[in-house]
Amino acid sequence: MNIVIAGGGVIGLATAWRAQLRGAAVTVIDPAPASKASHVSAGMLPPGNEQLYGQKDLLRLYMASRELYPSFVAELEEFAPAGYRRDGVLDAAFDEDALYTLDHQQAFQESQGVRAERLGPEECAKLQPAFAPALGGLLSPDDGAVDPRVLTAALRTAIESLGGTIVRRRVTRIDGHAAVLDDGDTVPFDRLVLAAGCWTHRIEGLADGAVPEIRPVKGQILRLHSNPPLLNLTARALSRGSSLYLVPRLDGELVVGATYEERGYDETVTAEGTRDLLTRVAEVVPGAGDLRFAEMNASLRPGSPDDLPVIGPTTVPDVYMAAGHFRMGVQLTPVTAEAMAAYLDDTEPPAHALPFTPLRFT
Amino acid sequence: MNIVIAGGGVIGLATAWRAQLRGAAVTVIDPAPASKASHVSAGMLPPGNEQLYGQKDLLRLYMASRELYPSFVAELEEFAPAGYRRDGVLDAAFDEDALYTLDHQQAFQESQGVRAERLGPEECAKLQPAFAPALGGLLSPDDGAVDPRVLTAALRTAIESLGGTIVRRRVTRIDGHAAVLDDGDTVPFDRLVLAAGCWTHRIEGLADGAVPEIRPVKGQILRLHSNPPLLNLTARALSRGSSLYLVPRLDGELVVGATYEERGYDETVTAEGTRDLLTRVAEVVPGAGDLRFAEMNASLRPGSPDDLPVIGPTTVPDVYMAAGHFRMGVQLTPVTAEAMAAYLDDTEPPAHALPFTPLRFT
Repeated sequence: MNIVIAGGGVIGLATAWRAQLRGAAVTVIDPAPASKASHVSAGMLPPGNEQLYGQKDLLRLYMASRELYPSFVAELEEFAPAGYRRDGVLDAAFDEDALYTLDHQQAFQESQGVRAERLGPEECAKLQPAFAPALGGLLSPDDGAVDPRVLTAALRTAIESLGGTIVRRRVTRIDGHAAVLDDGDTVPFDRLVLAAGCWTHRIEGLADGAVPEIRPVKGQILRLHSNPPLLNLTARALSRGSSLYLVPRLDGELVVGATYEERGYDETVTAEGTRDLLTRVAEVVPGAGDLRFAEMNASLRPGSPDDLPVIGPTTVPDVYMAAGHFRMGVQLTPVTAEAMAAYLDDTEPPAHALPFTPLRFT
Repeated sequence: MNIVIAGGGVIGLATAWRAQLRGAAVTVIDPAPASKASHVSAGMLPPGNEQLYGQKDLLRLYMASRELYPSFVAELEEFAPAGYRRDGVLDAAFDEDALYTLDHQQAFQESQGVRAERLGPEECAKLQPAFAPALGGLLSPDDGAVDPRVLTAALRTAIESLGGTIVRRRVTRIDGHAAVLDDGDTVPFDRLVLAAGCWTHRIEGLADGAVPEIRPVKGQILRLHSNPPLLNLTARALSRGSSLYLVPRLDGELVVGATYEERGYDETVTAEGTRDLLTRVAEVVPGAGDLRFAEMNASLRPGSPDDLPVIGPTTVPDVYMAAGHFRMGVQLTPVTAEAMAAYLDDTEPPAHALPFTPLRFT
């Protein structure tokens, strides 16, 4: 089976690799693989998030992906390091409202069988001494983060090690069973996967309505650096009704995110986006001011019409879709790749993937 | 006359060019010409600054350089554009204390014959509509700014057009009448100019005390961008006892500076330095938040023991010095280059340069 994947972000790459493991020959086509949202994402793998509350289908998908992560990473690390850490996530509350959020989150995690340990102010300070005094915290010892830059590099290594091809071109149009590239070349396929994030529906040549519009939701994200790392573990700082995530890497990088902005395809890093994150991190991590300002990036999260992932076959024969993961692309990568590999292999996809079929929009 | 110049910042380059115009053969030696303070500087050319008040010698030097700028640029532009604009500098007061500062500055400018026009709040708003409401302003119509990146590029073009050489190496040691480079090569000279900013006194092989220590004074500076430019003219925003400078370029770049930090040779761009400038610019230019965050840089201003420039012969025969210009390197470039060219040519240096001799420290 000859599979072409339009889009080399984390979803497209992981789908390619898992399809290879089932015997497919894959070609990933992307003008700059893993350079957009996958490059900019913090890669936090938290025990859950507020988007999951009350969304049963999404919650099942999320928990399945969380369950898959360790084995997904272990298999991938036969090829290259994946940048995964599972040494805990600390949610820290900096005001009274945030303490209620922790109560809610703790109850949620308990309902899901996700370990959570309630911490007092002293325990928070001990665990994360660089934090400003917190009113309390919740430690999820079985969660963590992955470095998406390392993860996607490992996926590329795996794909090429297994004989797959990564073509640095853009798919502009589908013509029957061929992808037409921006240089006019065509690449034939048995099956095609559309995995081009918020650019997916711009690929031409498909029947109207076959592919839902995936809108861009801009995120700006900050990277600071220190040696040694300032924070000990992945964290979310809750205050004033919002959550700031802080993802430290072992090399001293500290990722701080993020903004949410609906501004079309604008990928500009702005003065205000930068100021906002710097101000918020300074509030919860007083020593952050001395850290090196390493990077400030913007990228476009892919949002589907119902803000839920789009995974599975489209109405066009042999054309599949894996996009629209919004804020959860990295978190949902193992489950998406596994479901896509099953679809492409004509085996039964896991039940938790079925609600996310593209056919729900038709 | 064969002249070697150790240091290819704006001072070294301008000195080389002016020496060439008097017939010298020049070699500028710098591992990365115009990449340090000269690359990062905003290049504001204001009608004066608080460092000049009460410093008569510095004031005379400053006014001489200001006077020279138009002809210096005109001659340089026979080779390449110099990035000079002389369309006014607006000082805007955002609190009552700042209005008193404007009174003082106006009196100072009148005493120097530098045109200054007092503006009310409405006139400020008309001149710079992107500003938050100011209490008043002072317009200096004969002042402006230069883009140091364009200026140094023009100087390099001029030097090479006139047969000079720019060697991408570092001078590590002086051995008689030869400069020893970091790769072991030696470059003989008739006369040598030390113009390596805060690295000048680290050049070895000179008698103790011949070269004063030039300490690094770190500055962090922000570059935003918009198209069209958000500000119409070069400005300083005065509030809370400090001055924020805002230097717009015609291409839409807006340079905002700067911090002053005594931290040795540390050139780290920090989270706090970035946050500080972004916060201050947002206060005086409400629309700045939407601008593209283009660059954040740090560099080291060269501060001499008395914070005044060091221009002229050292106690070592045929070894000269042009360094220590602190915050005013770009502003004092024409006068420094002219004085150095006179010294190197054995003609009478201008009287206003004499107080800045390196011999004052011996």
